[in-house]
Amino acid sequence: MTLENLQHSLDYRFDDAGLLHRALVHRSYGRENNERLEYLGDGALNFVIADFLFRKFAHRAEGDLTRMRASLVRRETLAEIARPLGIGAVLSIGAGEARSGGRQRASLLANALEAVIGAVYVDGGFGECRRVVRALFARHLAVLSPDHLDIDPKTRLQEFLQKSGRELPEYTVEKTGGEPHCPTFEARCIIPGVSRRFSGEGPSHRIAEQQAARRALAGLQGDG
Amino acid sequence: MTLENLQHSLDYRFDDAGLLHRALVHRSYGRENNERLEYLGDGALNFVIADFLFRKFAHRAEGDLTRMRASLVRRETLAEIARPLGIGAVLSIGAGEARSGGRQRASLLANALEAVIGAVYVDGGFGECRRVVRALFARHLAVLSPDHLDIDPKTRLQEFLQKSGRELPEYTVEKTGGEPHCPTFEARCIIPGVSRRFSGEGPSHRIAEQQAARRALAGLQGDG
Repeated sequence: MTLENLQHSLDYRFDDAGLLHRALVHRSYGRENNERLEYLGDGALNFVIADFLFRKFAHRAEGDLTRMRASLVRRETLAEIARPLGIGAVLSIGAGEARSGGRQRASLLANALEAVIGAVYVDGGFGECRRVVRALFARHLAVLSPDHLDIDPKTRLQEFLQKSGRELPEYTVEKTGGEPHCPTFEARCIIPGVSRRFSGEGPSHRIAEQQAARRALAGLQGDG
Repeated sequence: MTLENLQHSLDYRFDDAGLLHRALVHRSYGRENNERLEYLGDGALNFVIADFLFRKFAHRAEGDLTRMRASLVRRETLAEIARPLGIGAVLSIGAGEARSGGRQRASLLANALEAVIGAVYVDGGFGECRRVVRALFARHLAVLSPDHLDIDPKTRLQEFLQKSGRELPEYTVEKTGGEPHCPTFEARCIIPGVSRRFSGEGPSHRIAEQQAARRALAGLQGDG
């Protein structure tokens, strides 16, 4: 795997190959790394995806577009796209990072992919960047549907509170029991200005919080 | 104030004036409102500002760029820019919203400005959108400096935890006393995997949380 192969896979040839090289330097390798390009690429990626969804789903509400975008630009999806491009193999990373499996780590791959997208933008401009991003995400974009999204109860609660002009909820989670390999957690959902407290239980922080949010939403909608 | 004046102030003339019209319809006015354009404009704005900062501050780290962008695209800054454009006067809003001062409300003005930016992008493409955004933000961009940023302790704590691969903190806040016009709050900062609890007090949620974050950061850095 070489930078030559990667440019072929991206269907984009850099005028300044130094930009692509820089996009593939993790911060564990040195000060001259890809963090600034990642920052730029993250912005480019979010906007290109927003634009695509805005046009493709012309009759969908903003909330659906936001959720679809979140499902596409999350770390796991980016790493799925970065892996077959062989980005892990050409990444410059520190020795310690390499020993601990850094080349396979989703966060490093996702960040490097964003940096590559940023580098394409700097090198070729917005039109080329949009073309490359759409091609990279083509398979994911093709199967995307707002109806397939399982909306997180925390998101639904947040949207409900925002629509009614309320402040956002705060969550606290405590481990309440279970074996070390199988803990249980209890989450409390606290909503500013609402005296009732809602709680949820589950095998992870996330699931306990989701249950608390689901109960809060049911409780508040029942009040309305 | 008319849409004609607004186009003059934006230094942009719409091919499809219907897009500008749509960008100025708040959801309280009807189903055909500006929420989708706001979604698109938010993405465009964030990217144009990211691009500007990336180029202007070529030797600044990603964290500085992120904080500078956050200071520019926050609601208050957007409303400051929207007000002299006269967006409040030409906004279509529901009668109830109008009676409660909606035309002066920062959130409505900020969202409408984002929708206008989205409309410019749809109508004129990325180059025109970038030109209009840079002109709108020119005064704010000119005085921006990473050294002027007072970094929020919550942000610093979050960055510290992310760098050390830890989970993000959770905050809870309770009102603990004070007169109705002058309440006091106590915040607790809970960090997953850290048994110590850090607390802070202050006259608002935000200030109490900031103090708790400052203490948590001091405590954890002391451990390291």
